[in-house]
Amino acid sequence: MIQSITLIGAGNLATQLGKALKKSGFKISMVYSRTEKSARELAGVLECPFTTSLKEVDPSDLVIISVKDDALDSVLSQLNTGDSIVVHTAGSVSMDLLSNHFKKYGVFYPLQTFSKNRDIDFSEVPICLEASSEMVFKELKVVGQRLSKTVRNISSEERKILHLSAVFTCNFVNHFYQIGDQLLEKKNLDFDLLKPLIRETAEKVMSLKPIEAQTGPAIRLDETIINKHLKLLTDEQELKKIYSFVSESIHKTHQKN
Amino acid sequence: MIQSITLIGAGNLATQLGKALKKSGFKISMVYSRTEKSARELAGVLECPFTTSLKEVDPSDLVIISVKDDALDSVLSQLNTGDSIVVHTAGSVSMDLLSNHFKKYGVFYPLQTFSKNRDIDFSEVPICLEASSEMVFKELKVVGQRLSKTVRNISSEERKILHLSAVFTCNFVNHFYQIGDQLLEKKNLDFDLLKPLIRETAEKVMSLKPIEAQTGPAIRLDETIINKHLKLLTDEQELKKIYSFVSESIHKTHQKN
Repeated sequence: MIQSITLIGAGNLATQLGKALKKSGFKISMVYSRTEKSARELAGVLECPFTTSLKEVDPSDLVIISVKDDALDSVLSQLNTGDSIVVHTAGSVSMDLLSNHFKKYGVFYPLQTFSKNRDIDFSEVPICLEASSEMVFKELKVVGQRLSKTVRNISSEERKILHLSAVFTCNFVNHFYQIGDQLLEKKNLDFDLLKPLIRETAEKVMSLKPIEAQTGPAIRLDETIINKHLKLLTDEQELKKIYSFVSESIHKTHQKN
Repeated sequence: MIQSITLIGAGNLATQLGKALKKSGFKISMVYSRTEKSARELAGVLECPFTTSLKEVDPSDLVIISVKDDALDSVLSQLNTGDSIVVHTAGSVSMDLLSNHFKKYGVFYPLQTFSKNRDIDFSEVPICLEASSEMVFKELKVVGQRLSKTVRNISSEERKILHLSAVFTCNFVNHFYQIGDQLLEKKNLDFDLLKPLIRETAEKVMSLKPIEAQTGPAIRLDETIINKHLKLLTDEQELKKIYSFVSESIHKTHQKN
C-alpha cells in the first residue's frame, strides 16, 4: 500500500496536489524542483526535505512527476527510483513515455485548474488514472479515492481529449473573462457587475446541456446588435476577429441542431 | 409609486422578470406578445390578462418593453400608454430611442442570462437603470431595489459596453462549454468530468483578477502541447482556427503584462 510519496516538481499542480495528499494522511518524503526557491517553499509547506538534484531523489512508494511537458524527457532519464511506482500528471502525454524507464508506472491526472495560492477542494476533482498493470491501478486508485469522490480509469487517448476540452472550457473561458474585464476597465466599469452572470453561466450547464443554455445575439446572427458590437471594437482588431469568429461558430452550431 | 406593470414581450427575459416582479408583490396588469401561445403561457404563470394586439395594451404605472431589438421600432409606434413610465430592457439600445414616443421613460436592464425554464434569483442580478428624469429614476430605483441588492445608474454608452462584455463572458463562454461537450461526446466521455473545472474556473475570478487566474499551455505558447491539440482537431477546421486564435490572444495578453 502506498504510504510515502515523492514529488518531482513544485509548480501549481504539484503544490496543490502535495497539500491535498498531506492533508489526506500521506507522508511526503521529498520535494524536487530545479529551482531552489520553489523546492524550499513547497517543502516548507509539506514539512519535508527538498532537493534540486534529481540524483538525490530517494525511492518511495510513489513518485509523482509534475513538471512541464518539455522537461519530462530529461527528468525521466535522470531519475533513479528503484521499485517505486512512478506516475506523471500531464494531460497530453501518453503513459507509454514512462515504459522505457520504470517497471511500475501510470498516470495520475487531476482534471482541474490549479494556482499556487488558491487551495482546492480535492474531493470534487476528477482523478483520471491509467496504469501499467491491474496491480498498479489498484494502488493508485486507493490514493485517488483518499483525495476525491471521482476516480476514473481513463486511457491516454481519452485523457488527451479531456485535456483539449479543458483548454476550451477553462483556459479559453478565463480569457473571455479577461476580455470582459479589460473592456469594462477602459470605461471605469466594475468587473463585479459581471460576476453574477459569470456564475450563472457556469451553473446553468450543471443541469442543462450547453447547447440548450445558449442565449444572446449570435444564435440567430442578429445583425443589428452584432454590428453595434463590432463598431465598439473598431480599435481592437483582434477582439473584433474573435467576436466575428465565435459568433459565426455559435450560429452554425445552432443551425445544425 | 409604481404598483401595476404591463409586460410587452414574453421571451426569456420578460418571463423571468415577470415572475420576479410578481413574487416581489407587483401587480402584472397585462402581458402582450405577438405570438398567442407565448402570451397565453406567460399570462397563465402571472395570472393576468394577455393580448396579441398592441392597440389593446392599457396604460399602467410602468410598461416594460422586452422584445427583440429589431421589433422595438414597430412596437413603439403602435403603443398608446398614456402617462405610464415606459422602459426597455435591451443592452445595446440607447434610451433616446424612447424620447420621441413617451414623456417619462428609461431603461431597466437586468445583466443576466435568462432561459424560460430556469428560474433566477433576482436578488443577485445587477439592475442597470437609466431614466429621462430624476423623478423617473427614483421610481425605477424603488422597483429595482425590490428585486435586487444591486441597482446602478448606468448610461447608454456604459450599458453597451456591459452588454458587449456579457457576450464574451456568457454567450462565448457557453459556446466553449458546448465545444467541450461536443469533443467529449465524440469519444463517449461524460461532460460531468468537466463540471468541477467549469465551476472552479468561474469561482476563481470571484476573488482573483482573470489575468491572474489564467493557467494552461497558451500563456507561454507551449508548442509541444498546442501542436498535439491542433492535431486532434485536424478534422475540425473551425475549432482549429478558434484554438489557434484564442491561444495567440492569451499569449499576447500575458506578454503585455
